[in-house]
This record gives sequence, structure tokens and C-alpha cells, in this order.
Amino acid sequence: MDDLISKARDFLKEKVMRTPLIFSPKLSQLADVPVYLKMECFQQTGSFKVRGAFFALSQLPDPEKGVVVASAGNHGLGVAYVAKQLNIPATICVPATVDEAKLNALRSYKCEVKVFDVPGFDAAQKLAIKYAEDEERPFLSAYDDDLVIAGSGGTIGLELLEQLPSIQGAITPCGGGGLPAGLAYVLKKHKPRLHFACAQLDECPALKLSLEKGEAILEMPPSQTLAGGIEGGMGKRPFALLCNRVDEVLLLTEKELYEGVRFMLREHQVLIEPSSSAAIAPLLFQKQKKLSGPTVLVVTGRNLGYDALWGIMKDGN
Amino acid sequence: MDDLISKARDFLKEKVMRTPLIFSPKLSQLADVPVYLKMECFQQTGSFKVRGAFFALSQLPDPEKGVVVASAGNHGLGVAYVAKQLNIPATICVPATVDEAKLNALRSYKCEVKVFDVPGFDAAQKLAIKYAEDEERPFLSAYDDDLVIAGSGGTIGLELLEQLPSIQGAITPCGGGGLPAGLAYVLKKHKPRLHFACAQLDECPALKLSLEKGEAILEMPPSQTLAGGIEGGMGKRPFALLCNRVDEVLLLTEKELYEGVRFMLREHQVLIEPSSSAAIAPLLFQKQKKLSGPTVLVVTGRNLGYDALWGIMKDGN
Repeated sequence: MDDLISKARDFLKEKVMRTPLIFSPKLSQLADVPVYLKMECFQQTGSFKVRGAFFALSQLPDPEKGVVVASAGNHGLGVAYVAKQLNIPATICVPATVDEAKLNALRSYKCEVKVFDVPGFDAAQKLAIKYAEDEERPFLSAYDDDLVIAGSGGTIGLELLEQLPSIQGAITPCGGGGLPAGLAYVLKKHKPRLHFACAQLDECPALKLSLEKGEAILEMPPSQTLAGGIEGGMGKRPFALLCNRVDEVLLLTEKELYEGVRFMLREHQVLIEPSSSAAIAPLLFQKQKKLSGPTVLVVTGRNLGYDALWGIMKDGN
Repeated sequence: MDDLISKARDFLKEKVMRTPLIFSPKLSQLADVPVYLKMECFQQTGSFKVRGAFFALSQLPDPEKGVVVASAGNHGLGVAYVAKQLNIPATICVPATVDEAKLNALRSYKCEVKVFDVPGFDAAQKLAIKYAEDEERPFLSAYDDDLVIAGSGGTIGLELLEQLPSIQGAITPCGGGGLPAGLAYVLKKHKPRLHFACAQLDECPALKLSLEKGEAILEMPPSQTLAGGIEGGMGKRPFALLCNRVDEVLLLTEKELYEGVRFMLREHQVLIEPSSSAAIAPLLFQKQKKLSGPTVLVVTGRNLGYDALWGIMKDGN
């Protein structure tokens, strides 16, 4: 894994943004330790997903066949962006519950977009895998893939070690687990005592249940949520990397996630999507164990439709 | 000026963000040329102002005396951020009409903040200059200063030439004129035929009036606006650099600026402040002359209070 992550870091150097780490005075006050935000919401395509997509697509054995992916939106956007640059045909499969901003952005890339009339990520993924098999084209998982894990969480972890050598804690949203797996791998290797927390929707606690069961729960019932990026089951490979590296799983309600979106607008003048808020909201609602030192919250993305944002702001007024 | 701008570029290299240039499919469609956004709204402290502040404060002859500045908010934030890093005492003077997000952020830096009970930037600046004289401390203008001009617009210009070698047009908000002056200087030097447009509030067309009069109009009556960054008179030095380099001045109403804020949320999932919208709104309302090739809009900042954002969104519903 180490070689793969170094390789991803070198490969991505001039291709994606080294996102800034910004200090949050208010969150630091709430948590009683210095708190920093890793701004992957500033990343190309509006989320960290472009990192793993770029690295994985660069290694396709047969680029002419292109790639089929299933996505709640951000993985699809990353893949669409890269496929255009590498001139690879891409088919992006999304569930009917996809966020409006993500769908509009996907369509602007002129890749093939399939909206499957099913709710939630897992159901869309099943259909996408079947489609890829029928078409004899490779399927690229949004998280259950070593290249994606190394490219996303792995490279973010290396950046964090450089940007904040004193890091002692990290909180990250967890969906299928690709980002947390790579991140935990790098951070725990260099900082074995670092506190690593994953945050999930309380209605979709796939990591929590997987840890209890001792194996990855690959599918979950669909949830009605604006946080599509953390909805659905865990990946096998991410779970294998995470199971002995996660110190804490934090569960958030939909409404708590909305408060995190409002907080980021109010305190940092930054729009984030509710999935990203899973890294912020735990501190607002004091969900986490006492933190012992400088802690990074991974702000994974910004792709939230205007009407959904309007609803979230109304919810708070 | 060239030496100063190169020096600023080298000095700022590891200190501020090289902000991304992102393609806008929708604005490109509207303008019928490729349109790119220079995302200074992702910059440290939420605006481009930190560039000029960092360069200028690094050259203070007597750092112990610190610095006094007048600001609509963003210059003050840039100065406060840098002053903390360089351990320089800073006094930031703002008008009573300052944006709430900017004032809160300023206060988080624990520098001295003086809110003068006057409307608009020009009146606050007069009082700030008097205060600096009384205290025998140096006053740093937000725009009428070669170091600020070189550090802000100058370095942004050099980045744009690298990021988009085919650039043929630029639209930038214009307040006191520091950013446009440095930017026009660099771009026109390397691309004499580039179309350079400045955008202002129709209620405060200081550049337009200055061009008509043939000299800088240093003060304007205060305007009731959420675009404090482009309110007030022109600087002498910026005007000297701009007067024979500006091809077009575009005037926007307050409501048109709000539409630009909503557009950026809707199409790019990015919060910007209304002053920045002066670069976006001209394309939405077809104010500019026909563009002839790849054009950059400078998105100057994101510091907009939550209540003001709420008002702007309500205005559009």
C-alpha cells in the first residue's frame, strides 16, 4: 500500500489541487484543541473524489473500453472530469435520488449519464455492475479499489502530515470507506497514537454495524437524505484497512448535518454539502470523545443543489 | 513596476495560495467564448487582499510601530492575518456599514479593530489616516500603494499568464483600483490586444467618472450596498496605471450583483460576496462588448454574512 500511495502522490502532483488547511477559531474553541479544516471542497469538480478517479483511470489496462462507474455524484464527477482529459469513454450511473447540482454538473461533461430509477447508492451500483458486465467494460468502484483508496485518502493523509506535523486527531465522513481507509492507513502508520474518527448518518451506520459484526456490510437499506455521499454499504477492502484503525464512529442525524452546513456558511463563508458536514457536526453537538491535540476535519465536498441549500437555510430560520 | 511584481511573486510563493482557474460551462455558453474563473475566493482570509497585505507588511521599515489600515473588510482581514504571523501590531479601521462576516472574522484575530460610526469606506479612511497621524504610525492604503498593487493584481496577472496562455480577455471588480491596476499592467504588457474590463456599482462609478474627468476621483458619496469592496473613490496610483489600459467599464445594479451570487451557488456551488459578483454579473446581463477569446473573471472574495446571504437568496425566490 505504501508504494501505491507514494506513486499516487507523485502522479497527482500537477493534476489535482493541494487543498489548503485552514484554522477554525470557533471549532477550536468548541473542541478545546486547535481544529483545522482540510478544504477538499475547493478541489477540482468540487470534491476529493477526483484524486482517486485520476489515479485509477490512469492505470486502466484498456483505455478504449473506457469505464463504467456507480456514484452518488462526486465519484462520477471526478471520473467524468478525468475521462474528458484522458479522452476515455465513461458511463456514470447514478440513483434517482442524486443531488440536482451533481446531476447538472455531470451532464455538462457530455459523458454518458444513466439515471437508474432506484433509490440510494447500493441499488444503483448493482445495476451499474450488471451493465458493465453486459457491455464487457471495466467497472470502477467508488471506494472498493486500492487505486482509489491510495489516490484519495492516501494522498490526503500525506498532505496532512506535511501541512500539520503536530496532528493528533482526524474526523472524516465515511460512506463506502475509500477516503477513511487510505487516510487512516497513512496517519496511523506515521502517528500510531492519533485519534481517528469516522462519521456517518445515524440512519445508515454501515461502518458501525460492520465493526460490530466483524465483517463489511456491503449493502444498507436506502435512506432519505441530502447526504448521498455517505449513504449505502461499506466496501470490503476499506473495511479491512479500517477495522483495526478506527477509534470511534460518530453518528449524526440529518438535521445535525444541516446545522454543519449552516455553520460553515456562517463561520467560514464556504458552501459544503451535507455529507461533508459529517466531519463538522460532531464538534457542534459534542459527539466525539475528548480530543487531545491538533485535529483535522476533512471537508470532502461542496456539491449541493441550490434548492437543497435553500431548504437547509430555511430549516435553520 | 516589473521588478516589484517579480519580487512580490517570489516572496508570496509559499505564503499564499496559487488559486485555481476553473472553467465555467454556463458562462462560456452565455459569452460564446471559453470563460474561466480565477478563484481568489478560495484564498486565505477569503479574498485576494492577503496577497498585497503580505507583500506590503513584509517591507515595513519599522515593524514595531505596526500599521494602521482602513478597510471595507477584506484588506483588514488580510492585514490582520499577516500581522499575526509577522507579530506586528495592526489597527484595522472599518465603517459602520462593514459586513457582519468580515467584522466577526476580524475580531477573531485579536488585532485592534476600530468601527467608525460613519457610512462607507471613504469616510472611514479619512478618520483612519488622521488616527495614524496622531499615533505616529504608518498608514497602509488598501489600494493606493505600489506594494499592494504589485502583490495583488500583479501576482494574479502572472499566474493567469501561466494558467491560461491563450487568455484574451479579463473582467475584474474595481473599487479603489489596486487589483485591476496590477492586473492590467501585467496582462497588457504581455498581451497588448487583450480586452480588459472593470466592473463597478452603478451607484458608485468612480473609475468611469475618473476616466471622463481625466483624473482620479478620490471620494464618492457613500452607497447603500452589500458590495462594500467596490464602494468608494479611486486611488491616484491605480488610476494612473488604469487610465490607458481599461477597455471598458461595466456598471451593475445592486440586484444584478445578487443574481451573480445566486448564479455562483447554483452553477458552481461556491459562495461569493456581492463585490466579486461584479465580475460575473456582466455576462449574465450581457453588459460587456462581444468577447473575442478565452476570458477570465476574477472572483475576488467570499466574505458575506449569513443574514446577508439569506436576504440575497430570498430576493431571488
